[in-house]
Parts: sequence; structure tokens; C-alpha cells
Amino acid sequence: MELIDRLNWRYAAKAMSGKKVAEDKIDRILEAARLAPTSSGLQPFEIFVIKNQAVKEKIRPVAWNQSVITDCSHLLVFAAWDTYTADRINYMFDLTNDIRGFKNEGWENYRQMLLNSYPQKDPEENFNHASKQAYIAFSQAISAAAFEGVDATPIEGFDPAAVDDILGLREKGLRSAVLLPLGYRQDDEDWLVNLEKVRKPMEDLVTVIE
Amino acid sequence: MELIDRLNWRYAAKAMSGKKVAEDKIDRILEAARLAPTSSGLQPFEIFVIKNQAVKEKIRPVAWNQSVITDCSHLLVFAAWDTYTADRINYMFDLTNDIRGFKNEGWENYRQMLLNSYPQKDPEENFNHASKQAYIAFSQAISAAAFEGVDATPIEGFDPAAVDDILGLREKGLRSAVLLPLGYRQDDEDWLVNLEKVRKPMEDLVTVIE
Repeated sequence: MELIDRLNWRYAAKAMSGKKVAEDKIDRILEAARLAPTSSGLQPFEIFVIKNQAVKEKIRPVAWNQSVITDCSHLLVFAAWDTYTADRINYMFDLTNDIRGFKNEGWENYRQMLLNSYPQKDPEENFNHASKQAYIAFSQAISAAAFEGVDATPIEGFDPAAVDDILGLREKGLRSAVLLPLGYRQDDEDWLVNLEKVRKPMEDLVTVIE
Repeated sequence: MELIDRLNWRYAAKAMSGKKVAEDKIDRILEAARLAPTSSGLQPFEIFVIKNQAVKEKIRPVAWNQSVITDCSHLLVFAAWDTYTADRINYMFDLTNDIRGFKNEGWENYRQMLLNSYPQKDPEENFNHASKQAYIAFSQAISAAAFEGVDATPIEGFDPAAVDDILGLREKGLRSAVLLPLGYRQDDEDWLVNLEKVRKPMEDLVTVIE
């Protein structure tokens, strides 16, 4: 399966060269993220695509000074909803009715059920839930980058509150969840590039219940 | 890109036929999950592959009675670590040294840093973090299923404590995070199969910072 070949090819590049990734590749990586399935189809996140070098330079010191933050081509910031609101839920249900061209009673009942639960929950719990959905899309973006021959370095090591400040996310009802620099590996400065990929053996990961 | 074609093909089947998925397909889906990147490479989750019909029947009532739970071929349960422990961290660092055939001072310092942080954190926070890593693998499994022409229905709608009980997960230091029935769609019983896929337009998902 080509996906497995691409997953074996990819790794978390620790040094990038600054070379730019073509915009059509970025478009397809974002399209894979857009197509990711999410809970109730709500897609409770947004993606910020940072091409501006000055903004990348502001983020680098709050991300353990990792060089890939500034040496990448495009820095993706996956930002999850800070909570679920009625407006946000209604947006997706209205969009669905609009795209499918009809209203359905079961679907409207489901809308009411979500309206009666999510907005009343603890925002932190909602943000955690939204973050997990963002991770599904983040994962598809990582795979898509591998299909494009683009390096992608998943980064959780950053100060989310500082990134939120730099990008003005809280005012938009968003909180940064995870970063994904996209670019090209710089082999001669990357300690990881020639090391063997390490994964648990299947028998330590999987239990079959026959 | 073939990945995008496959993501457009897939949907969350609401009815499955009971037809069995060939074991080599399941193996490749699990391999994609195994290759998923995770924070510090810890792979803080396990996957239970339920083929046993009686176990599926126990889970169905605690998963909103969704028919795909029993009508799927293999039910995957992604179970995240209930917390990070020194043993679990050491396992992965030792495995890495073993596979790569050498010890590295920077890597050993990193091990100590993780040993000095994760095990002291609130287990709930650790479980949340581990769950997100499980979602990365879950997402790769969804894509891999699409490559195999296998339907996969992401399911968060279940009672995690009840599934933990049925599978004896808490005794293993695990907690169920998300379910993924794998099987084949039953078109004539599935209200969703012929409806158009709904996703936010790109302009509502992505902001480019030039």
C-alpha cells in the first residue's frame, strides 16, 4: 500500500533548508486536512498557514527555539475552538442542509441534542474534545505531506498561550493545539535523518480478541 | 494525489453487511497505525482488535446501540495509557537504543527530562495527552482502510468506562479512547451512503499569514 511506503519515508525532520514548498502541494496538504472526519462533522478547528518570516521568528523562541520553525517553508498552526457554541454548531448544520438541499427531521433532532449538550459543558473539556478532532486533521496533513515528498515535523513542544498571543487566537475563540512546519530536510544538519525509525513491535501494540 | 481520492471515497458507514475483511488488509491498516508519529515517539496507546462476536454484542448497547459495532468485521478499540509511568517511558528509550545499537548522551538527557516530568503530572492530563497520540494513529488507520477499500466508522459515541470494564482495560493501565469498526457498507440500509460529503469551504478553515 502506497500509504505505508509514504509513512515509512517520512520522519520528523529536525533541520530544514528554507527551500519553499510549491503552493499546489500546500493546497493538497490542506485539502487532506479539510477532508478529515470529525465528531458530528463539526470540524471544530482552524488552520493558520504562516508564510511570514517575522511571525515565524516570533514563534521560534516560544517553541523551544527549534530551527524548523523558521527554516520551514510554511508553518501550519492547528487551532481548536476554545469551546462549542450554538453559533458554531448551527453553522455546520445549516451548511449541511444547504449542501444537501433538504432538511431532515432526524438531523434536526441531532442538532438540538448537540445544542443541548456541548455549549453547557466546561469549556476546557470542549477544547480538549475539539483538539482531538484537530489531531485527526493534523494526522491527515502529515500523511498528505509525505505523499507530496514534503517534510513535516509534528511539534507539541511550544507554549500555547504565547502562540495564541502572537496570532491573536483567543480573540477569535481559538487556542493553538499543535504545530506542523512544512519544508525540506537539510540532511547535513539533521541528527535524526540517518537513524532507523523506531516503533513498538506489533505484538506490543495490538491484542486480538478472537 | 491518491490520498485525497481515497479520503473523498471514504465516509462513516452507518450500516455494515457483516462481510469479513481479509486479514492482510487488517494487517496493513494496523501497520499504518503503528507507523503514526507520536509525541517523543512514546506510542502511548494499544489497539484491541475485536473479532469475537459475543464481545462486540456486549459493546453495542454501551455504544448507542449502533449496528456497525456488531455488523463490522473487526472492531478496533484504541486504548490510551491511563498515565505515563517511568517503566513505560524507559521501555521506549531502551527499545530505541536497542534498535539503533547505541546510546547517545542527548537522548539519555531527554529520557531524564521526560522521567522528571510526565510521571509527576496529573494522570487525567497525561491520559488526555496520550489520547491525542492515539488519535493520530486512529486517523492513519482511517486513511489506510480507505486505501484498502474497507469502510471504517469513527465512533466517539460510547461509554468509555463500560468499554473499559468489558475489555478489562483499567487493570492493564489503559482507558478506551475511540472506536473504529472496519467492514463493508450495506448500501440499502445506510441513510448516509448517498448523501453528499459536507466540509467547511477552505476559506472558513484556513487563514494564510503572508
